[in-house]
Amino acid sequence: MNISDYMAYVGRNARQASRAIAKATTQEKNAALLSIAKQLDASRDQLLQQNALDMSAGRSAGLDDALLDRLELTEERIDGMIEGLKQVAALPDPCGEITDMSYRPSGIQLGKMRVPLGVVGIIYESRPNVTIDAASLCLKSGNAAILRGGSEAIHSNKAIATAVKAGLIESGLPETCVQVIETTDRAAVGALITSSEYVDVIVPRGGKGLIERISNEASVPVIKHLDGICHVYIDDDADLDKAHRVALNSKTHRYGVCNAMETLLVAQSVASSILPRLAEDYIAKGVELRGCAATCSIISACSAASEEDWSTEYLAPILSIKVVAGIDEAIAHINQYSSQHTESIITENYTTARRFLREVDSSSVMVNASTRFADGFEYGLGAEIGISTDKIHARGPVGLEGLTSQKWIVFGDGHIR
Amino acid sequence: MNISDYMAYVGRNARQASRAIAKATTQEKNAALLSIAKQLDASRDQLLQQNALDMSAGRSAGLDDALLDRLELTEERIDGMIEGLKQVAALPDPCGEITDMSYRPSGIQLGKMRVPLGVVGIIYESRPNVTIDAASLCLKSGNAAILRGGSEAIHSNKAIATAVKAGLIESGLPETCVQVIETTDRAAVGALITSSEYVDVIVPRGGKGLIERISNEASVPVIKHLDGICHVYIDDDADLDKAHRVALNSKTHRYGVCNAMETLLVAQSVASSILPRLAEDYIAKGVELRGCAATCSIISACSAASEEDWSTEYLAPILSIKVVAGIDEAIAHINQYSSQHTESIITENYTTARRFLREVDSSSVMVNASTRFADGFEYGLGAEIGISTDKIHARGPVGLEGLTSQKWIVFGDGHIR
Repeated sequence: MNISDYMAYVGRNARQASRAIAKATTQEKNAALLSIAKQLDASRDQLLQQNALDMSAGRSAGLDDALLDRLELTEERIDGMIEGLKQVAALPDPCGEITDMSYRPSGIQLGKMRVPLGVVGIIYESRPNVTIDAASLCLKSGNAAILRGGSEAIHSNKAIATAVKAGLIESGLPETCVQVIETTDRAAVGALITSSEYVDVIVPRGGKGLIERISNEASVPVIKHLDGICHVYIDDDADLDKAHRVALNSKTHRYGVCNAMETLLVAQSVASSILPRLAEDYIAKGVELRGCAATCSIISACSAASEEDWSTEYLAPILSIKVVAGIDEAIAHINQYSSQHTESIITENYTTARRFLREVDSSSVMVNASTRFADGFEYGLGAEIGISTDKIHARGPVGLEGLTSQKWIVFGDGHIR
Repeated sequence: MNISDYMAYVGRNARQASRAIAKATTQEKNAALLSIAKQLDASRDQLLQQNALDMSAGRSAGLDDALLDRLELTEERIDGMIEGLKQVAALPDPCGEITDMSYRPSGIQLGKMRVPLGVVGIIYESRPNVTIDAASLCLKSGNAAILRGGSEAIHSNKAIATAVKAGLIESGLPETCVQVIETTDRAAVGALITSSEYVDVIVPRGGKGLIERISNEASVPVIKHLDGICHVYIDDDADLDKAHRVALNSKTHRYGVCNAMETLLVAQSVASSILPRLAEDYIAKGVELRGCAATCSIISACSAASEEDWSTEYLAPILSIKVVAGIDEAIAHINQYSSQHTESIITENYTTARRFLREVDSSSVMVNASTRFADGFEYGLGAEIGISTDKIHARGPVGLEGLTSQKWIVFGDGHIR
């Protein structure tokens, strides 16, 4: 079969399976998740063997240590996948939820029912555990899944797919509810992201390059997460203790994450009170500081920030700092440079806080809290398929609900217009 | 200015204006809508004059009567536009609504705020009144609008744009909150639907051809309404009076609308009881009947339906009829041939009704009610920007809320992770 026939075959299978999984009961879906967990547990040797093939091919191909680390499966990581399946089984089922039922003047009773999107295509890089993560979220939300992992993980992903298939068969759901693309040909990605007939949404998971490429080429809607250029703004009316605590945590709790602060904005009137003490703590933690002229005049151990710094996601112990006149300049700076991920204001002023909440156009807007809270688990979603920096469909952390939609339902008694 | 520079200029204007309209108060937005109404009222002569230019050009170009009718502005239609503006001003403002505030175990208080999408591009055919309709819905939902009407209406649209601009200026909002594309060059549409930097969503309004073309070429997300191949299924356990009433109304209340029934499915066990009487009424109203073999054996005045009939949106007094074994075949037929717009089951059976509701994958699913209820006004949305047959973001009738999204908001008290 050539790639386009193969992808159409996978697509038709998925569309058909999506009807079955959409009407599966919560019990049936949970049983399938637990069966998959059991099959993974029983396939440990096979998984480690196949992963060893990927690892040795990766070493020969000269993959760097970070990539090899993400590619590797260990007993602990298999435990993690099994635990993940059990956690998703324990989450509430979003499907079938009926809300907002009310009578209209015509006499019909109108409401909404939450339903799966249908077929979800997930494209990710070489972390085999994402295969299970993505499969479980799609199954629980009643969607069929087509998974395309990085080519470096192909043996591992095929072994995981075998366990998933066995689990689905054991539980009585169609084995095509989850299909792993079994070719490393890049044309498969091209076909997947343009198959509007078979695929309802694409979720790319990986680096910015992957996501940009897919968004540009896809004709199927994409739930995408580009970058996280997050800001904390310390306002004139900030409680300086809270400001110190939040600004430090937002940057230094973890560096390589999308919800870490990359730029600190400080109101002119408090800059010289707060910056020296903060800078000391940043420097003690090894954070490199790059600031505007006003910042550099307050902090000596600070280099001059370039224009490019304001639009850079460092994902590293580097922080840019800008002194601003006040809330207006802060909001203008954020709406110009932010990636619309997460921003936080530190203030005790009621009116300023309300303005920041309303006028900052980002997926999470906070008052007196660390940007690090912008996370599916912290938000109580139970699991996270990604963080959307889009405005359509879902913004911010996307959980099971992001893989569903709502249809209208109408109850009548022979009503006509 | 060449087209691409012009569209970038319009885009930048819109992005900037979107910040102002997003933070405008409900009072400010309503004042703008009423100012625009006043300006339209004061520009009647100008509107009719400019429309006459379009009408005479249209006649010379040989436009058909239906198109000329849609193109024409009359005193009554201007009254209609003014009335529409007042109605939108009277609708509740969706922006800024805060919901679902609750405390998380970490101590942060989490909720959602409804916010505008940003910049909405609307592409429509030659009905000048859509210019006001689209402008008012975008303004009320806090979005900046870029409007591209059919080239046949260019003089009318420019005259309406002048009135809109005057209304915006009078009310103190930026005049670029609503921009009408002032060129008939088709390249402007191509630029608009690929300007992800400046445009957040595209809403095409018009025939299936226009919408398909735009969906295929757009890189900006599209809220689209393709066709309405709607079904009514009369179940074994139907109340036959209700069935008769609903099946008749769904087809004959209006023919040229997307929520009219195009195919009637009838359970085998009741076909010979209900079809003869129904056929008589359809025929009396001039509806042409096309049926499966079983239908033709019951109704003599029925021609044989072809395979193509099952996937045809007639938008005309034609109805296809199929006798099915029961609920399973009905659902399978619908999920295969329907355009996922609206389907209704007529049944008194609790279990069958629940199955139909859950398993039929359409934007509106009804029990014992006419498909004609699938409409923004009947659903209480107050106004309708379109009916979405997509699954992402919005399904079914889309009102002001469909032009908004929700961002997360977090209140803390110096909380860190």
